[in-house]
Amino acid sequence: MDKPRPDCAVFGIWGLPEASTLTYLGLYALQHRGQEAAGIVSSDGRKLFRHAGRGLVSDVFRDRRTFESLPGMSAIGHNRYSTTGSSTEVNVQPLLVIDRTGPIAIAHNGNLVNFRGLRSFLEEEGSIFRTSSDSELILQLFARSYGSNLAGRLIEAVKMIEGAYSLTILTRNQLVAIRDPFGFRPLCLGRKADGFVVASESCAFDLLGASYIRDVEPGEMLIIDEKGLHSSRFADSNRRAYCIFEFVYFSRPDSRVFGDNVDKTRRRLGHLLAEGHPVDGADFVISVPDSSNTAALGYAHRGGLDFEIGLIRNHYVGRTFIEPEQPMRDFGVKLKFNAVAGVLRDKRVVLVDDSIVRGTTLKKLVGLIRRAGAKEVHVRISSPPIQNPCYYGMDFPTKDELAASRKTIEQIEDFIQADSLEYLTPGELLSAVPHDNGQEYCTACFTGDYPIPVDDDERT
Amino acid sequence: MDKPRPDCAVFGIWGLPEASTLTYLGLYALQHRGQEAAGIVSSDGRKLFRHAGRGLVSDVFRDRRTFESLPGMSAIGHNRYSTTGSSTEVNVQPLLVIDRTGPIAIAHNGNLVNFRGLRSFLEEEGSIFRTSSDSELILQLFARSYGSNLAGRLIEAVKMIEGAYSLTILTRNQLVAIRDPFGFRPLCLGRKADGFVVASESCAFDLLGASYIRDVEPGEMLIIDEKGLHSSRFADSNRRAYCIFEFVYFSRPDSRVFGDNVDKTRRRLGHLLAEGHPVDGADFVISVPDSSNTAALGYAHRGGLDFEIGLIRNHYVGRTFIEPEQPMRDFGVKLKFNAVAGVLRDKRVVLVDDSIVRGTTLKKLVGLIRRAGAKEVHVRISSPPIQNPCYYGMDFPTKDELAASRKTIEQIEDFIQADSLEYLTPGELLSAVPHDNGQEYCTACFTGDYPIPVDDDERT
Amino acid sequence: MDKPRPDCAVFGIWGLPEASTLTYLGLYALQHRGQEAAGIVSSDGRKLFRHAGRGLVSDVFRDRRTFESLPGMSAIGHNRYSTTGSSTEVNVQPLLVIDRTGPIAIAHNGNLVNFRGLRSFLEEEGSIFRTSSDSELILQLFARSYGSNLAGRLIEAVKMIEGAYSLTILTRNQLVAIRDPFGFRPLCLGRKADGFVVASESCAFDLLGASYIRDVEPGEMLIIDEKGLHSSRFADSNRRAYCIFEFVYFSRPDSRVFGDNVDKTRRRLGHLLAEGHPVDGADFVISVPDSSNTAALGYAHRGGLDFEIGLIRNHYVGRTFIEPEQPMRDFGVKLKFNAVAGVLRDKRVVLVDDSIVRGTTLKKLVGLIRRAGAKEVHVRISSPPIQNPCYYGMDFPTKDELAASRKTIEQIEDFIQADSLEYLTPGELLSAVPHDNGQEYCTACFTGDYPIPVDDDERT
Amino acid sequence: MDKPRPDCAVFGIWGLPEASTLTYLGLYALQHRGQEAAGIVSSDGRKLFRHAGRGLVSDVFRDRRTFESLPGMSAIGHNRYSTTGSSTEVNVQPLLVIDRTGPIAIAHNGNLVNFRGLRSFLEEEGSIFRTSSDSELILQLFARSYGSNLAGRLIEAVKMIEGAYSLTILTRNQLVAIRDPFGFRPLCLGRKADGFVVASESCAFDLLGASYIRDVEPGEMLIIDEKGLHSSRFADSNRRAYCIFEFVYFSRPDSRVFGDNVDKTRRRLGHLLAEGHPVDGADFVISVPDSSNTAALGYAHRGGLDFEIGLIRNHYVGRTFIEPEQPMRDFGVKLKFNAVAGVLRDKRVVLVDDSIVRGTTLKKLVGLIRRAGAKEVHVRISSPPIQNPCYYGMDFPTKDELAASRKTIEQIEDFIQADSLEYLTPGELLSAVPHDNGQEYCTACFTGDYPIPVDDDERT
Repeated sequence: MDKPRPDCAVFGIWGLPEASTLTYLGLYALQHRGQEAAGIVSSDGRKLFRHAGRGLVSDVFRDRRTFESLPGMSAIGHNRYSTTGSSTEVNVQPLLVIDRTGPIAIAHNGNLVNFRGLRSFLEEEGSIFRTSSDSELILQLFARSYGSNLAGRLIEAVKMIEGAYSLTILTRNQLVAIRDPFGFRPLCLGRKADGFVVASESCAFDLLGASYIRDVEPGEMLIIDEKGLHSSRFADSNRRAYCIFEFVYFSRPDSRVFGDNVDKTRRRLGHLLAEGHPVDGADFVISVPDSSNTAALGYAHRGGLDFEIGLIRNHYVGRTFIEPEQPMRDFGVKLKFNAVAGVLRDKRVVLVDDSIVRGTTLKKLVGLIRRAGAKEVHVRISSPPIQNPCYYGMDFPTKDELAASRKTIEQIEDFIQADSLEYLTPGELLSAVPHDNGQEYCTACFTGDYPIPVDDDERT
Repeated sequence: MDKPRPDCAVFGIWGLPEASTLTYLGLYALQHRGQEAAGIVSSDGRKLFRHAGRGLVSDVFRDRRTFESLPGMSAIGHNRYSTTGSSTEVNVQPLLVIDRTGPIAIAHNGNLVNFRGLRSFLEEEGSIFRTSSDSELILQLFARSYGSNLAGRLIEAVKMIEGAYSLTILTRNQLVAIRDPFGFRPLCLGRKADGFVVASESCAFDLLGASYIRDVEPGEMLIIDEKGLHSSRFADSNRRAYCIFEFVYFSRPDSRVFGDNVDKTRRRLGHLLAEGHPVDGADFVISVPDSSNTAALGYAHRGGLDFEIGLIRNHYVGRTFIEPEQPMRDFGVKLKFNAVAGVLRDKRVVLVDDSIVRGTTLKKLVGLIRRAGAKEVHVRISSPPIQNPCYYGMDFPTKDELAASRKTIEQIEDFIQADSLEYLTPGELLSAVPHDNGQEYCTACFTGDYPIPVDDDERT
Repeated sequence: MDKPRPDCAVFGIWGLPEASTLTYLGLYALQHRGQEAAGIVSSDGRKLFRHAGRGLVSDVFRDRRTFESLPGMSAIGHNRYSTTGSSTEVNVQPLLVIDRTGPIAIAHNGNLVNFRGLRSFLEEEGSIFRTSSDSELILQLFARSYGSNLAGRLIEAVKMIEGAYSLTILTRNQLVAIRDPFGFRPLCLGRKADGFVVASESCAFDLLGASYIRDVEPGEMLIIDEKGLHSSRFADSNRRAYCIFEFVYFSRPDSRVFGDNVDKTRRRLGHLLAEGHPVDGADFVISVPDSSNTAALGYAHRGGLDFEIGLIRNHYVGRTFIEPEQPMRDFGVKLKFNAVAGVLRDKRVVLVDDSIVRGTTLKKLVGLIRRAGAKEVHVRISSPPIQNPCYYGMDFPTKDELAASRKTIEQIEDFIQADSLEYLTPGELLSAVPHDNGQEYCTACFTGDYPIPVDDDERT
Repeated sequence: MDKPRPDCAVFGIWGLPEASTLTYLGLYALQHRGQEAAGIVSSDGRKLFRHAGRGLVSDVFRDRRTFESLPGMSAIGHNRYSTTGSSTEVNVQPLLVIDRTGPIAIAHNGNLVNFRGLRSFLEEEGSIFRTSSDSELILQLFARSYGSNLAGRLIEAVKMIEGAYSLTILTRNQLVAIRDPFGFRPLCLGRKADGFVVASESCAFDLLGASYIRDVEPGEMLIIDEKGLHSSRFADSNRRAYCIFEFVYFSRPDSRVFGDNVDKTRRRLGHLLAEGHPVDGADFVISVPDSSNTAALGYAHRGGLDFEIGLIRNHYVGRTFIEPEQPMRDFGVKLKFNAVAGVLRDKRVVLVDDSIVRGTTLKKLVGLIRRAGAKEVHVRISSPPIQNPCYYGMDFPTKDELAASRKTIEQIEDFIQADSLEYLTPGELLSAVPHDNGQEYCTACFTGDYPIPVDDDERT
């Protein structure tokens, strides 16, 4: 689908029986953040154990016996979006290695912006790399650090890296959670019975029956061991740069991130969209299910319009799908969506979507809706035009492929053949997200204002 | 999940290139009617070819080369709900056999009520059976019939069977569609270019770009061959017994069955529910997604209430899911649903569901909603209490397991711990479904009024 | 490989715990008779259970839990050589059906010669066929028979069929073994503890720790049930036609078939070959491993020559093997064999093989041996030239592809580029096999003398 | 089976089209040296490509498309014996990493004896390890070396390692072959058209149609690039320590290793065994097939006895095999071997085997042979008693499990219940292997004389 892709979910758990099974549930709840590969590393206090593979969590862990090979009361896990290329599994996280202090495993959500420089430096120093992942780089830095204990050595390592990183790390007897000083990606802390849980989003806690405590703070390192929870700060700056797209699209509406419920924030986006970008004479509002449902509901309620289900989504789409050799119009989009003619016929429709990347899918959806009989299709987008690539962990097409980097809004309206097209402005978007706790946001994909400068050769 | 299960979808196509690939798409669009097995038989005019297996359509047909082994311009297909027992694939439809006139394949949706009697008769005559399926029985009857042509022989065979059957049949050079005289199960006819398409629901036509022509009539046999389309009637009775549950739950809202859009009918169910069973002081309406969305929208609009999304459904649930050994409260239902606390907290909620079978899932959902902070949960069901088993193709639990066969509505209300529980009455339900074309309905599961009597020994 | 292929092995067991696991072992010992598919049906006295699939026995039954689904103290099994075409498993034996007396399963080794006639007859009578196998035909005949008990009905059925058949049949409480009146294929009876075992070859008994009792006689039907073993005869004729190729190639040397040890008979073939077809000045004898080892040893001992290992066989060849795009000389044969240069260099070699079908493999082997340095290669075949197809259960190429049907021995010698080529004569072959118990043999593939006439339309 | 296990085969190819397909064939010919995992890395001059997995070569590479993902005219490959533990594939060779000079891949046959010391050193220096393999250690040393070119850096790295290593290494534009100064493991060089081939044994060349040139010398590094073949020496010592067990058991008889044909040497072992350890009144000689065939033939010829086939080996044994729950006598050995009663009954048998590890299998074989009717079983072993573990690449049981480390020959004779048991002496063994080119041998497993001292903590 034509959406930005998050890069991954991380999870960690400490001090709970069946830690690996609980990690599996946590990853399942976070499946929307990465669907290409999944992995778990557990510790029984003496050894670390790993199982990982390509596919959905329920594919990679389909055999109860797998969990017998992942014993212990602590574990970390990872969902990965895309694994490029190799048929082997070397790139699947968590990464597990041995350094002079013993085994250590890491799971990473985010993207470093000084990766190439650090990697060149390490290669010159004699390091070898099996993957192209940030995770391996961080572990190499850690292995070379001189501190006398885990905390000191980890801080030494993370001080060298720049960019977005929410990390969970496991040793034989410690669980560590680290969030970068800007706080690009979410990471939150929960509690279940006598144990602790760390996850990219709080929706993972609900499934486990854990309770949300607080976010891991930007620039904070949490170490959890048998003595309890230790927090330390490793960054001086107070500039924050929370990824505002988590509210727009990535996070699940039942999660709490960056200090607010996603549902509530996303609903405010709908309200602002209705207030600032109304449609005269519309019959009702429909959404592109499921990601735009909440914003569309907000639009309907605030706009005094009915919310309707005009597109049915088919959830049975498999990994691969075979297309007839004779081309079929709108094949790809019709596999996922069908328009409900009984609802749409002869209506003036407001279609709410959360974002436009290339615009190709939306163009096909507008066509589907028209062919189902709609008289007018007015598109409202609950975020501003995406004009710039992200270097902090979202996976976009290149700048050239972004509809809004080459076209005006009018041209996009033409392209998707909508009767009208309006976006939220960056200002509107910022006014909808929480600021009550000093939150600051990264809006680079909309505004080009990058919180951390990125050298040309780090722009993949 | 705690829902009645339809038994299967049928599909057929004639006179179109890549007939087997199009059948695959048709089965994909009908996936909601059966997810345990899928199969296709195609004809190239000289031979019949078969591929079938267990799993979703996209699992069974995951390799393009499969379609090279299914050549020809005609094909039939089948989705099956549950395959019991055997690890082999003998039971997966379509069934393909050879009789004295050559190869013939059949796909069946429904359930016969004189199966055991006919089977005993055939066994006494020296027939052998490899499966326990109605399909094999029908083919045995066909093989023993004396008519001089396909039409005559098929009519001779179907006149012996009683019960629910929507059939697609393929020979080397004919496609046949048959619907039983009562018309229990839907079956509709469409057109694409110079070819014909037959499917259980019209939503399959949308994906193919075919257009809906009309329903196959109860008691009608359509034979399509190189001379065109031939219709004949094989039943005298005019009593109809359309399965009203197709409107309540089985069919997709974007389908047209029994002469009306499912979406429209299902919305009327919501309207009647709001009119007859209002909730004073409710804050909003939520649905059990996705099957109850349409009725819940109808309830909200007619009741003057907002529609909200209070339950998030997780669509990544795999075939098997591993449960922790320590029991977790509401584990099964939490895998599929999470309650959105930000929406529900301190609210009076109307929860619309389409039906109650055992009530166990609904009880857990009400609990989830309460623990997410809802003050009151009022449950409204868009159909009457299910009190009787179905012998015409729905798969229910036994009568004893049906909540409404053992409990009063008040007792069910108690059991699911709702603040109130109300159902549609059979009369309300019947008033919502179309009657403009002489439609009559089977409501046996609600009323015990069975259109075809069923002997004790046929009650499986 | 360029060898005739046997069609299948049958097995049966009665009155022993873990009957299905023992059947699995029996099929494993009989794996050389069929490697494409395997299956087991067991009975626990009330129901029959089936598991079957494509591949080696150890592939089809790789999970201990499979045997939990095959309970009971009796079972039959089958190894199949080639399954043609279909990706489904309908053709894999044993076949399990239900007729008026309940479930019945059958496994068949051999080939019927009045199949088409009987099938046409049955089709006219209204039977349907799911497979093209003899087994289904036999079951249809059985189902239509009128006898009052199993024995009577089975005899009625087998009296209608002509050709080669060694059958094992299982009902809820009976195991049956039947061998055709000519006795084409072997079938022997053994005993283990309080139970009975039936198998195509006695080597299956050795693995089970069962002891050989006797052969099932031609025209004999054995029924084993809780009252014990019952023998009856269903044929008047005393003409026998044991497949002499079982001694030449099919059976394992450690088996006893047709009243003698295969090893001993095969060794006599070597003796006769040495006596009648010596090679002057030969340095030693080598075999085409493993099937010709015994005959080659016989040749060496009688000829006063050393036996050497000049060809190494690679046993790791998988089901499919990928060939370079640039053609490699002798690729196929080199995958299986390597010539031992250290043994062969500058030597005059006698190469013993058991038979020649097309001659293509042997031609390549002679080439391999020459390129490894042999000065002369004299080929001796421990059977006569194969000139005619077999209709009784061996799978040959068509007559046109048989080297000896189109070429003289001299022409074959030229074709395979041997320094000399000699075969056993039919008379020599017959003089080597046992006759002490009235054994008579089918030599049709060598002589064209078919014991049962075969109509043109039955010649597949 | 109760045999020492080699650890692996290596292969390399340069300058030939379809290099990866040819590597696959080479690995197939070397399958006997490792059956648990296989892998290939190829280079197209710009990038390195890798595919590897668990299982036989024909399992890991079963799809032609795999080779499209392994383009280029150079490649290396590896067969691995045992992969311990992990379900992931991190341990499967060749290992492919990136260091400061680009991608580099390595395949290793042998075992280092200063692994732990070097690894501790590297860990202290900040290296991280993903595997427990020698290969990763060698690459880490290489990455830290300072030489200005590949040759210098590799020599710097290998000068630090001690033990047995035959290596093939691939960069974008170089193929390297290295053999340790003692020459423990074989490695030979061949030529095909304009390209070069390197393999553990020459039998790989035969399948490819390559010709054997010479062995890679102990202490020699060959670098092959577009300029041709460059040889350099990196060791001063001239002490050799060829693994004498390659002649006894590991290498295929059609290979040439350490300057002689394996077949010829193995046959001399049989001759010496017959001369020094005759059996009075023996009827004939049989072998434990297939590995002891050549020595048994040698024994028979020199001893003036017939060679017979008394044990049939079943080659269909799968990876896993299911055993009945009721224990069966000799189950494991009977799966692999059946005794030919017709040959053995009432005979005095000489049974030649190549070695005894635990003796448990041999004990069962002697039992099988006796129960098949043999009067006497005299066991002759074509190597001396194994009394010591190997640290140079063979995988033995621990010293305690070695029959000969705890028992006298008489006690072993008793244990295996042979009528007599005799071994070759170390002196006899050494007199049978080639010395014409200054060959010296490691006989540590027989004599305890370790060519390289091994510290206690390196003794795994």
